[in-house]
Amino acid sequence: MPTVSPLAPTSFPALPEIAGVRLAVAAAGLRYVGRTDVLLAVLDKGTTAAGVLTQSRCPSAPVEWCRARLSAGSARGLVVNSGNANAFTGKSGRAAVKLTADLAAKAIGCRPGQIFMGSTGVIGEPLPAQKFAGVMDDLVARATPDGWMDAAKAIMTTDTFPKVATATAKLGDATVAINGIAKGSGMIGIDMATMLAFVFTDAPIAASALQALVKEGVVDSFNAVTVDGDTSTSDTLLAFATGAARARGAPAIARAGDRRLGDFRRAFQQVLDSLAEQIARDGEGARKLIEVIIEGATSKRSARRIAWSIANSPLVKTAVAGEDANWGRVVMAVGKAGEPADRDRLSIWFGDIRVAHRGARDPAYDEAKVSAYMKQAEISIKVALGLGQARDRVLTCDLNEGYIKINADYRS
Amino acid sequence: MPTVSPLAPTSFPALPEIAGVRLAVAAAGLRYVGRTDVLLAVLDKGTTAAGVLTQSRCPSAPVEWCRARLSAGSARGLVVNSGNANAFTGKSGRAAVKLTADLAAKAIGCRPGQIFMGSTGVIGEPLPAQKFAGVMDDLVARATPDGWMDAAKAIMTTDTFPKVATATAKLGDATVAINGIAKGSGMIGIDMATMLAFVFTDAPIAASALQALVKEGVVDSFNAVTVDGDTSTSDTLLAFATGAARARGAPAIARAGDRRLGDFRRAFQQVLDSLAEQIARDGEGARKLIEVIIEGATSKRSARRIAWSIANSPLVKTAVAGEDANWGRVVMAVGKAGEPADRDRLSIWFGDIRVAHRGARDPAYDEAKVSAYMKQAEISIKVALGLGQARDRVLTCDLNEGYIKINADYRS
Repeated sequence: MPTVSPLAPTSFPALPEIAGVRLAVAAAGLRYVGRTDVLLAVLDKGTTAAGVLTQSRCPSAPVEWCRARLSAGSARGLVVNSGNANAFTGKSGRAAVKLTADLAAKAIGCRPGQIFMGSTGVIGEPLPAQKFAGVMDDLVARATPDGWMDAAKAIMTTDTFPKVATATAKLGDATVAINGIAKGSGMIGIDMATMLAFVFTDAPIAASALQALVKEGVVDSFNAVTVDGDTSTSDTLLAFATGAARARGAPAIARAGDRRLGDFRRAFQQVLDSLAEQIARDGEGARKLIEVIIEGATSKRSARRIAWSIANSPLVKTAVAGEDANWGRVVMAVGKAGEPADRDRLSIWFGDIRVAHRGARDPAYDEAKVSAYMKQAEISIKVALGLGQARDRVLTCDLNEGYIKINADYRS
Repeated sequence: MPTVSPLAPTSFPALPEIAGVRLAVAAAGLRYVGRTDVLLAVLDKGTTAAGVLTQSRCPSAPVEWCRARLSAGSARGLVVNSGNANAFTGKSGRAAVKLTADLAAKAIGCRPGQIFMGSTGVIGEPLPAQKFAGVMDDLVARATPDGWMDAAKAIMTTDTFPKVATATAKLGDATVAINGIAKGSGMIGIDMATMLAFVFTDAPIAASALQALVKEGVVDSFNAVTVDGDTSTSDTLLAFATGAARARGAPAIARAGDRRLGDFRRAFQQVLDSLAEQIARDGEGARKLIEVIIEGATSKRSARRIAWSIANSPLVKTAVAGEDANWGRVVMAVGKAGEPADRDRLSIWFGDIRVAHRGARDPAYDEAKVSAYMKQAEISIKVALGLGQARDRVLTCDLNEGYIKINADYRS
């Protein structure tokens, strides 16, 4: 295993129990030796489900399974495995998904259509789902309301640290909790990533309302993170609301527009933002977290596209790796984005230091000052286009030998 | 200087003289020490000019200068420097371009508007064009019809070998020659690259016809090469036709549709193809040349976009660097391209070895055989989509520590 990313959080929050959620992990021996590789979350009756899935035209079998289950939006179990993505596995992949759902449904006592799943790891290898048969009953028997950190660890692949986040919110007079776990390190690109994220709450929220929350929540969190611009066949964000807080007086929410959702919406976004940022902090080989801010664009969409052009540029990312304030490469990336930009209005900052102003190097440019800034672990690159009012922000990491080493060896 | 790319041509063609073209190089001391950094091509009266330039919204000053000169299409001189791109240099950049044109025009005895130019190197540093004053008269005095290899060397930046190509063609009863030189190694992306290429012929071809030839010629040559997906502020392809072959009986060509152009068109394309391939072979740090072929697409445009998605994927490129036949990453790249693709019709080959067939691993998949293939220096990845008849091909190179080392240090 690689050493832990230098950008990893220095401490992990203690995740509280979520009423209606029980967790267990096991080592099914899918690929890894000496570590857990399967997570089961058992969900109480009445749990609603929502989610967004990869836009890949070649999605994995579990992605197709989940997509078909989201319209009903009823969940009793979640099975996640690492080591094998069950992607591009044809008929055998579909059979493996069906078998997994049957095994979990039988053990939990629900319909197979109430089982959600996620798989991450190698593409193209048949998933030996029969291995789940040996552990499923035991998983259900051992499932407990704690063990969130173990759950986050069981779903890791090239991740160097487990990703967890938690928040509480007022819903009516009750306090509800939101826990999230995620994995993702490489194949992290625009509009989702090789990224699995699962968020759980005890708030009573109807599936359609939860779906709306997820859709609006990903825009500036998971969809605003890139490591290598590569989008996987398996990207999955699922949210589950058990509704258990209703017993404590939380109002049942039927619509996303319900005003009582205000504080929940904030807390939910906070969990998504935290998980997404942790993925950037664990970008394969990452030593620098890079925030790209675009201001003065003609639209948010245009700002986002320019931000991606910078954040996905190998030349910008290697320059940051080399602690080189190479703003010329930022100009290059703005120019190639194909979006409205006027060289002679363009200004660029590294941190608080303006390096370029209105189409030329800043008259006060001080190489020593900028070079000192570039030695920091978190680098902010801001571009002011001077064309409009729209703004956007995305996160990425540097590109260095670590990424190459991981990806020239690892069969993902 | 880096060592020469292992993918470099093993021999260089001897470039013949082109009647009407004389060349000279000098060390103007713009940035480099102990090497030449400026090329002057003196062109006889009557030379026509055509070209395509970067689509960057933040083009360099010389790109803007050339774009404005192409409509007249009359050339007497070409000045190219390495070490400084004169990009994002604001007013001083425009002044430097004007000064360069004035100096060259005075030395040659023509109008400044007949001087074309190209600059490559650092972005954002003012170009000290007054340094050309000291060498321009001498360059004109020393210009000779040979020295093509020296010309190619003077315009190199991170290139590890000079790029030259030559071909002859029958035009009417005369034989005409076409010579090309190019530079480019990083910041090589879709629709041109940090790439300068200059092609010269003695054929008598009107500027508008030459322009049409250039436009059709780049589609499957320079526009089908990527190293890192980054497009520079300076990409320039210029073609010059001196018309000197008219004295040897070559017919004057006014329109690109002229049937007599058939053999010339073939030879011209051959020169562009060769130069473009050499750029891929000199991709920064490249150890593997990768050919990506898409078949069975719904349109050429769709095939091209899928090909780019594969050729620009860091995960595909690092897998090839690691000699890993990781076709799962090819599936990923097809899936993320956003173009029509049906997983269950998809087949993938590495070289002649089919690794995936109709949405799953090929039943005859033989890891040892594929692994042996991946050790070669030239890797072909073919994807059959099974949807239509369109096909495309692009070239790229692997992504390894060499690219990182070059770009985390080099201020380009």
